[in-house]
Amino acid sequence: MSDVTRTYSSVVIGAGSGGLTVAIGLAALGRRVALIEGHHVGGDCTNVGCVPSKTLIHLADEQLHDPDSRAVLAKVQAKRNHLRDEETQHVADTPNLNLIKGWARFLEPKRLAVTQPDGTTIEITADNIVIATGSRPRRIDIPGLPAERALTNETIFEQEEAPRHMVIVGSGVIAMEMAFAFRKLGTAVTMITRGPRVMSSAIPEVAAAMHAALTEWGVTVYYNATPSAYDSATEALHIQASDLPVDIPGVDRVLLATGRVRNLEKLDLERSGVEFDPKQGIAVDSYGQTNVRGIYAIGDVTPTSHFTHSANAQGRRVVQRIAFPWLLARSPEPFYPSAIYSDPEIAGVGLTPEQIAQKYHPGLIKKMRFDLGKTDRGYTDSVRHSFVILYVVRLTGRILSATIVGPQASAMISLLNLAISQRISIYKLYSMVFPYPTLSEGIKKTADTFVRETLPNLKAEIPAYLRYRWATPPQPNGQPEPREQTMAEAQK
Amino acid sequence: MSDVTRTYSSVVIGAGSGGLTVAIGLAALGRRVALIEGHHVGGDCTNVGCVPSKTLIHLADEQLHDPDSRAVLAKVQAKRNHLRDEETQHVADTPNLNLIKGWARFLEPKRLAVTQPDGTTIEITADNIVIATGSRPRRIDIPGLPAERALTNETIFEQEEAPRHMVIVGSGVIAMEMAFAFRKLGTAVTMITRGPRVMSSAIPEVAAAMHAALTEWGVTVYYNATPSAYDSATEALHIQASDLPVDIPGVDRVLLATGRVRNLEKLDLERSGVEFDPKQGIAVDSYGQTNVRGIYAIGDVTPTSHFTHSANAQGRRVVQRIAFPWLLARSPEPFYPSAIYSDPEIAGVGLTPEQIAQKYHPGLIKKMRFDLGKTDRGYTDSVRHSFVILYVVRLTGRILSATIVGPQASAMISLLNLAISQRISIYKLYSMVFPYPTLSEGIKKTADTFVRETLPNLKAEIPAYLRYRWATPPQPNGQPEPREQTMAEAQK
Repeated sequence: MSDVTRTYSSVVIGAGSGGLTVAIGLAALGRRVALIEGHHVGGDCTNVGCVPSKTLIHLADEQLHDPDSRAVLAKVQAKRNHLRDEETQHVADTPNLNLIKGWARFLEPKRLAVTQPDGTTIEITADNIVIATGSRPRRIDIPGLPAERALTNETIFEQEEAPRHMVIVGSGVIAMEMAFAFRKLGTAVTMITRGPRVMSSAIPEVAAAMHAALTEWGVTVYYNATPSAYDSATEALHIQASDLPVDIPGVDRVLLATGRVRNLEKLDLERSGVEFDPKQGIAVDSYGQTNVRGIYAIGDVTPTSHFTHSANAQGRRVVQRIAFPWLLARSPEPFYPSAIYSDPEIAGVGLTPEQIAQKYHPGLIKKMRFDLGKTDRGYTDSVRHSFVILYVVRLTGRILSATIVGPQASAMISLLNLAISQRISIYKLYSMVFPYPTLSEGIKKTADTFVRETLPNLKAEIPAYLRYRWATPPQPNGQPEPREQTMAEAQK
Repeated sequence: MSDVTRTYSSVVIGAGSGGLTVAIGLAALGRRVALIEGHHVGGDCTNVGCVPSKTLIHLADEQLHDPDSRAVLAKVQAKRNHLRDEETQHVADTPNLNLIKGWARFLEPKRLAVTQPDGTTIEITADNIVIATGSRPRRIDIPGLPAERALTNETIFEQEEAPRHMVIVGSGVIAMEMAFAFRKLGTAVTMITRGPRVMSSAIPEVAAAMHAALTEWGVTVYYNATPSAYDSATEALHIQASDLPVDIPGVDRVLLATGRVRNLEKLDLERSGVEFDPKQGIAVDSYGQTNVRGIYAIGDVTPTSHFTHSANAQGRRVVQRIAFPWLLARSPEPFYPSAIYSDPEIAGVGLTPEQIAQKYHPGLIKKMRFDLGKTDRGYTDSVRHSFVILYVVRLTGRILSATIVGPQASAMISLLNLAISQRISIYKLYSMVFPYPTLSEGIKKTADTFVRETLPNLKAEIPAYLRYRWATPPQPNGQPEPREQTMAEAQK
């Protein structure tokens, strides 16, 4: 082993978005921090995630009518590399922050061994250790598929030009974003998904809208489908769709977007004493604290919402926890919105329908929907497949959850996040003036409908509210469909 | 005169957005309503305003790389006509609502004469009369300019194809939106404005950003400039710019966007007893009530914010006032946001800098700015000339006003409207999670900066707050620059 032991105030394992937030935040407060990273600074988000994908989506939209996929992909790589260099430099320039290239594993709860690229090992001890090692794409094996034809989010942005025909296995966030972006670059796109609907983590209306949007863009979706083999000679991907064999010819690339695996194996977590569940990840409290005092976990390794902004928000709370423990008023963990940059975009915030069903009697809840195509801006801009759906407590107008599908959904969702977080009732949105003509007027129209259904009808609404407010929600007959519960959910 | 007098519960003069809101709202509540309109149902917004302009802006963006202005303008007219027909049909189909074609004038406070298109006159009496006659473009005379080459918002959408070279006189809302839209359709655009900056009603940073954006799009702006004559032979527009003569050659169209004139002259308002100021319009309380009980005014004829959404909001309050007078808790008039659909968009809400200066000592106010280009989404999308500026009370973090310049500004401003209206401090925005990567993160970054400047510095912030909180704002030496005060301002 090594003959040197270095001691830090805090060690952060993983220089992705969440890890950088903690490392830079603590260093700025004067703590001596080590940041351990085996790959690139910036993690998935900067290198193989949000940054290249949003650059690609933006350029694909700009070049819609005459796309030059070589130029677009070159620019995506150039912008990504530039940001990576900037972030790497920023880390190097940050006082009190020491970037250590290598892979960390626990020797004991507060002691790590770091294997550096040259094979040497150093030992590090610290009062606080933050695990932010993130996740990687789940690989599935498709017999006959050559490695260079199988893409994941880690390789899709490295292509020199857009594929001729890309089959996307999966229908979640990455699958949705890449389907529209590559379609716009001229690629033929086919999607195959294991279940009966796309975007299975969202409410069913999202699946219906996105199915329609994908179809309109000429993307064929196979449901209840899995890939079975690939034939290089004919370029055919063989799949099983609803138990029937289907051959998809002329496929030159297959994007595997079938979920994520947490990067936990190499950490020797057993030696740390940190409890974790292979399926749920590392359990943490609302400040990222694991069961071992002084060891924290944030981002994809936790059961929480797996977005960059969630990892960042968790990182900020860990900084507060470490640096200002006496200041903590145990403020509740914030809501983590979701945002998917497909076309239309998808965004959501608040409780899931399952959480609402557990907590409230269905008679207490009104599900309000307004189609954004029916706003005047929806009319002028020919908006389709777009809506806002709110779950609202009847009579009181308390908003429990919001889902928006539509252009600018990711910009509009923050208004509803604020309303939900601050318990601002739908009556306040009803009396607020929205700029005309915007799609966000759809939110106001939803509020209008609620008020129009409620106020003239108080004779029925008040008894209904009183009847259901303290009623026990009916228990589901069977087990609910298994679904990964997020940390935000678990705390509710 | 007529030999018939018709009696209604309410009469609405003008079938623009505001008038329609009142007429349809009251009719739906069972009131017998007459709606008097000399031109088209839908008013400026549907026919020569928001609807055709936003359709044009959307199509111009879609066709950015290969515009076909004939096809675009034909589609603008078709969509406008379709919506106009729908609205006209909707009015016809609304029970209790009687559309009367013609022009109204007061005979006495509750009695109107309506001159119909065939020259006949009918008399109408009503308990409630709502004046919603709107405004029209201010015309200026340019010697030598043929009528068919002078455009206003009333004629610009009727063109068959985009002009070769359009000079825009003015630099307000209509001027800004049309400059970018027609530039994108391939028109050469020159702007001349009387003052030293564009968008003079907004904070100066808006002018700087829009100057840069206009310049980047190849629009030349002449400041301190007025048109003096047009020479049809040479197609030259002669102007005076900063007292020097300038000839702009090859001009085939001039858009007069030099402000609006209220449609009041034909109403014989003197006979109604309604007080009005030729420059400010008809004074109303926060429910649209004039000095004469039962006579209301909304929209452009009032001193209020002159947006469609403002007229609609006023209209909703008039409906409440007429239909549910006993329910009124005298809820405060809402804030009217502004939204201009230029590129970048411009949106604002809250107090003006002048109102803030009148009410608060400058030592109490922090002006926070964050450039949206510095967000990660700004980086991926190459966003320029874009920012969020907040005026915030130091220490408490109460937000007094917000201005956003940038893509989707009109969608983002509602979050700040809610925060300002509901007195949600900037600390709450600081602890809220915004989706990554969005431009709305710029709002959070602004909040971050405020918190970072405040919390570690409480020793200085608290005394500063206490010193300035009850201090009298210094009085300006001279008169403030004359500026039309809006109704929203006057009530503060």
